[in-house]
Amino acid sequence: MCDGFDVGISRPCDLLYLPRLEFLPVSISFQIEAISGSGRAGKLVTPHGVVETPVFMPVGTLGSVKGISQDLLEELGVRILLGNTYHLYLRPGVDIVRRMGGLHRFMSWERAILTDSGGFQVFSLNELRKVTEEGATFRSHLDGASHFLSPERSMEIQIGLGADIVMAFDECTEYPADGARVRASMEMTLRWAGRSKRYFEEHKNEVPWGGSSQLPALSSQPVALGSQPPGASRQGLQIPRFARDDNSEPDGDDNSGGADFIGQTQALFGIVQGGMDRELRRESALRTVEIGFPGYAIGGLSVGEPRELTREIVESTLEFLPADKPRYLMGVGTPEEIALYGGMGVDMMDCVLPTRAARHGLLFTSEGRVSIKQVRYAEDSGPLDPACSCFVCGRYSRAYLRHLYASNELLAQVLNTLHNLHFYLETMRRVRESMLGRAQGCT
Amino acid sequence: MCDGFDVGISRPCDLLYLPRLEFLPVSISFQIEAISGSGRAGKLVTPHGVVETPVFMPVGTLGSVKGISQDLLEELGVRILLGNTYHLYLRPGVDIVRRMGGLHRFMSWERAILTDSGGFQVFSLNELRKVTEEGATFRSHLDGASHFLSPERSMEIQIGLGADIVMAFDECTEYPADGARVRASMEMTLRWAGRSKRYFEEHKNEVPWGGSSQLPALSSQPVALGSQPPGASRQGLQIPRFARDDNSEPDGDDNSGGADFIGQTQALFGIVQGGMDRELRRESALRTVEIGFPGYAIGGLSVGEPRELTREIVESTLEFLPADKPRYLMGVGTPEEIALYGGMGVDMMDCVLPTRAARHGLLFTSEGRVSIKQVRYAEDSGPLDPACSCFVCGRYSRAYLRHLYASNELLAQVLNTLHNLHFYLETMRRVRESMLGRAQGCT
Repeated sequence: MCDGFDVGISRPCDLLYLPRLEFLPVSISFQIEAISGSGRAGKLVTPHGVVETPVFMPVGTLGSVKGISQDLLEELGVRILLGNTYHLYLRPGVDIVRRMGGLHRFMSWERAILTDSGGFQVFSLNELRKVTEEGATFRSHLDGASHFLSPERSMEIQIGLGADIVMAFDECTEYPADGARVRASMEMTLRWAGRSKRYFEEHKNEVPWGGSSQLPALSSQPVALGSQPPGASRQGLQIPRFARDDNSEPDGDDNSGGADFIGQTQALFGIVQGGMDRELRRESALRTVEIGFPGYAIGGLSVGEPRELTREIVESTLEFLPADKPRYLMGVGTPEEIALYGGMGVDMMDCVLPTRAARHGLLFTSEGRVSIKQVRYAEDSGPLDPACSCFVCGRYSRAYLRHLYASNELLAQVLNTLHNLHFYLETMRRVRESMLGRAQGCT
Repeated sequence: MCDGFDVGISRPCDLLYLPRLEFLPVSISFQIEAISGSGRAGKLVTPHGVVETPVFMPVGTLGSVKGISQDLLEELGVRILLGNTYHLYLRPGVDIVRRMGGLHRFMSWERAILTDSGGFQVFSLNELRKVTEEGATFRSHLDGASHFLSPERSMEIQIGLGADIVMAFDECTEYPADGARVRASMEMTLRWAGRSKRYFEEHKNEVPWGGSSQLPALSSQPVALGSQPPGASRQGLQIPRFARDDNSEPDGDDNSGGADFIGQTQALFGIVQGGMDRELRRESALRTVEIGFPGYAIGGLSVGEPRELTREIVESTLEFLPADKPRYLMGVGTPEEIALYGGMGVDMMDCVLPTRAARHGLLFTSEGRVSIKQVRYAEDSGPLDPACSCFVCGRYSRAYLRHLYASNELLAQVLNTLHNLHFYLETMRRVRESMLGRAQGCT
């Protein structure tokens, strides 16, 4: 038995742990392997494989991590990706993705996916959106066409996309905002959380890859980390979609996703808001937990507030989230921050920083930031990061990377992104290993 | 013994064939394995590995095939790349590349490289250049700065870059041009070929990866195809430049390229010009052969003339090139053309078409051209080319590729380029295999 959690739990957390039957048919389970201070190392079991936590989720906005093929993501050890509902809703559109069998099949990614609710992106549109109790009307950043998102519509889209984990539709409160505004926004997010859950529960069996059966969601067999999802083959995991030497259209009209996922559904996470007010954060957390979700996210941070304030709010929110559920801090952060928050008990994080910075030539290394465009690297024959084990640092020199970037070569964006993603994933793996090494045993 | 060549040769062409001593120290040899009609399957042995011919050489203008990492080029089976002297001279500059150990080391590519002379690109600048007997003055397309290229300067640059095969500095005659102009241009190319050879012979030992010794260039041992260059390891060929777990700067100041290439030098190819005049082509070929090179290129084609005329000129030029030397047709062409010319006895070709077309969404398949941007592919769950064995066709659907292209995702350019390159390389492999299968034995 494990103890020592901030809020007491009394569940066994050994490797064979699977959720109790009353949670079924929720298709994720969360197993805590070790705790260390406030942090914990765990395993998140999804319909599309096991994710070791704490985990950094690369952002694949439009069904692609910019410039990086799915093969390379697998080689990097990525177990879960984030897709953006707002972007996928506009292009290629949820109907196409659903008819193609869901986002996993559409992008040929057999590992786990999480989609955001679209809320954050809609609220980022500023001049282009209008929010009412019902939902948000907004104009597409692509063509100005008018669209409407609500808790129900976001759920409908996210079910159509078919990610393993979907997010409640929330309002990301702007910063700064006065107390009344923050409370009103938080209250609306809570009402939207209830509506999201209601719609999701009624429709979750419509997920394109299964769910039409009411069989128990999870196998009663233990799922070993590193085990393959159904049908896995190439490089230990990837499923070639097309048989060789067979000119027939694969899978014909059968876009149901196959029988491997029968009875399994997505998992809907709730989102805590409450601005920078610790009391409202506490209230938002408790009332979101009261609604009840298999995982909880902390939203509304990294919106312009000082970094120290982010940390305080995260810390005081984590206190009120159940220790036996995965906890996801949205949109954070730098390598230092993901290590910090991993150590504080956050299990999942995502951020565009490693991929976006890479495309602008900003690289994260064990020796600090490197702006690879600088002329000082023009004849630097050393690797980008001598301590890094990634493909890029193993093969190319700073001089070559600098040349590619300075010459605006496509390969610069590819290699820079590969390195930064590796750096982030490795940072998180070290936090996890450190917790597994230092932790009190969970036996 | 092989016979049946268009011009009689009487050399043994078994796998152990190596050039006679009077050609040493030239670091390439060409072995003909089989002939079929006018075509032949061969092996070109370079200081950086063996190249099976006929071969298509992907274009890596600036030391990178746009969007494709060197690991992937190796996986595609690329054995020789083309680099553009004009572009590399401007960025990063030959001095940097030379000080970094040459282009192979700079871009971490241990297989063969060929560089063009810079002439074609300079002549493409039109308004920005002025040609005299001495050479060509031109303005950089990047910043307008004035530069000068001559046979001697082109050789100096190409020796500094250190490709396995370098090209004589020639004038690519414009099309159309009158008879006097074509002859004058051809005569200058011949004079420049002599100057190129003279400078090259005097300076070829300055190549960054070796050559300072006057030892015979080639081992007397047969070089088996698929054998690894010195130090090869990963995936059968790639040499990780940096030792793991070693924070020291690799190789220190020693940019000499190491002892593996002692005595080896580059090989300089001559270029036949003569416009669209078959008689001038014959004269250019014979007089270029008289100067004497270890390989010959056909230049000045694909400059706007009708395709049928290209074919006629290629055919009538090939007649006058030695059958025992590699023959390189520059800047050609479509998949149909490279198959055609391979069958006609051309051993080497290069073209930007597969890579450039890929970036514009034009894909070559066994079923014809596919413009992947078309809406008809939006829900096409089949592979791009059902008969293709590339990574892309094995994993992704036309719908996904269409989505990536329509959404301007970086991955579109990467995957499209991978497929087109595979298609070109596979086309050439089939031509080769067909010749090996149909040919009279060479034993």
